[in-house]
Amino acid sequence: MLKLIDNRLTAEVLYTLQKMGHGDILIIADANFPSTTISKSTVSQSVLNMENLNAPEAIEAILSLLPLDTFVDDFAGRMEVDGEPDFLPPVQEDVAKIVRANDDESRDMISIERQAFYEFARKSYAIVQTSETRLFGCFMLRKGVIFPS
Amino acid sequence: MLKLIDNRLTAEVLYTLQKMGHGDILIIADANFPSTTISKSTVSQSVLNMENLNAPEAIEAILSLLPLDTFVDDFAGRMEVDGEPDFLPPVQEDVAKIVRANDDESRDMISIERQAFYEFARKSYAIVQTSETRLFGCFMLRKGVIFPS
Repeated sequence: MLKLIDNRLTAEVLYTLQKMGHGDILIIADANFPSTTISKSTVSQSVLNMENLNAPEAIEAILSLLPLDTFVDDFAGRMEVDGEPDFLPPVQEDVAKIVRANDDESRDMISIERQAFYEFARKSYAIVQTSETRLFGCFMLRKGVIFPS
Repeated sequence: MLKLIDNRLTAEVLYTLQKMGHGDILIIADANFPSTTISKSTVSQSVLNMENLNAPEAIEAILSLLPLDTFVDDFAGRMEVDGEPDFLPPVQEDVAKIVRANDDESRDMISIERQAFYEFARKSYAIVQTSETRLFGCFMLRKGVIFPS
């Protein structure tokens, strides 16, 4: 464990968050997501283990360090329930609150149709595997910048 | 870059600081130290690059995250100037201030005779290579614990 650091963030996760740069995408995957298969197309080609956490827990820990992109509209997104773009199941409501609380402008994350979400995932920097069992518990976060102080 | 994290800490350094546990030793080496050779005997068997920083800069960044061991007397140490155990050259004075400021009990780091220092280094978790050019600019830090809140 370290000072300042949420201890749900393993060495491997810390390493990846620091290696990512502005615009890079991190996918937070539920327990049904084909993480290993899709990871082969990602920049890091690896799956980060945040198992035994659900999606809101993993995202809360990640956003304690990761700045969200303030330059684009797709700064964060949720996997859309098929045919119901405006419906947020409870897992997505929980994450929406955490994203708003960690975004400088308290924005709502966008809805991403399922096939489009897979495309985001293939272009991502890395995939984080959670133990989230609720369906459509998949999310994307885009890294922003730290401004000079 | 990440929120909360001193940006002198690279992904590789973050990874190592998080992998280390209670009692593990980190060596901060000056530019003359045989880092690569001695690293072969360490736990990680690798040299971490904090080049283009001097020893006080590297240690200040590291101690922003690394807790110091409060259970032992050899929680931090400096490579003793040959035959002058009580003499602290300016590089050691600078680091001594940073160590005191980051130790819960504001303790002084111990003096470690040069051959004994090499022995600490061989038993360390990892060696951090700095660009410190001042002689005897070598230090050891022992990781402590984070108490539950």
